[in-house]
Amino acid sequence: MTESDAVRAANLEFYRAFTTRDIKGMDRIWARNAMILCTHPGWVPLSGRAAVMASWRNILANPDAPAVMCHDDIAFLYGEIAVVLCEEELSGGHLAATNVFIKEDGDWRIMHHHASPILTRALPQRRRSVN
Amino acid sequence: MTESDAVRAANLEFYRAFTTRDIKGMDRIWARNAMILCTHPGWVPLSGRAAVMASWRNILANPDAPAVMCHDDIAFLYGEIAVVLCEEELSGGHLAATNVFIKEDGDWRIMHHHASPILTRALPQRRRSVN
Repeated sequence: MTESDAVRAANLEFYRAFTTRDIKGMDRIWARNAMILCTHPGWVPLSGRAAVMASWRNILANPDAPAVMCHDDIAFLYGEIAVVLCEEELSGGHLAATNVFIKEDGDWRIMHHHASPILTRALPQRRRSVN
Repeated sequence: MTESDAVRAANLEFYRAFTTRDIKGMDRIWARNAMILCTHPGWVPLSGRAAVMASWRNILANPDAPAVMCHDDIAFLYGEIAVVLCEEELSGGHLAATNVFIKEDGDWRIMHHHASPILTRALPQRRRSVN
């Protein structure tokens, strides 16, 4: 397994815990030593294990929490840090996610998650003033 | 100047280039050696210097491009990588931003930007089934 495969496997484990509402699995996949961060869709950023894990407990305890499928996941490696960009497919639409991982004790663990709605797939056209 | 101050200064230089539509300054602040990534609000993720810088040329060439003010910026250091979480204030609303920096040749340069609308400042309430 390459490092890139290992990061993508950790990313999929994050989504498995999310979709199966596995709060213990969600806790395991987050970094233990590094400061953790999280920006849920529409939210202000959260930082620190207490705030981030409380947000996940709230989300996963919600019986209406959506199932989430991850696709188009690509891992980018920067030494002991990796960034996965992927799309999240929910019943309500598609989100673009940034998931940042850090290597701790030989394992890739997530230390930041930021997801936001995808509203367009077209590049914006360059607009010029006619004056 | 601490490392944290240096990262926040690089972050402010990113917003200065954005608000003054300084495409050369914007080009300078992005990493040159590391793979760069960018998820604009509502967009799918972009990767690679060609795609990311083309998106910025389009945005900064737009005479209707908004001025952006950054506030509540906090830098988190992870060795040669740093993450800044901040809010962006635009005429149309507020965004939550994740800006990831990498140290190259002694300078902190941005290698990922992800911004998304803030829709709520309240934590979601835990909802339970009544059954």
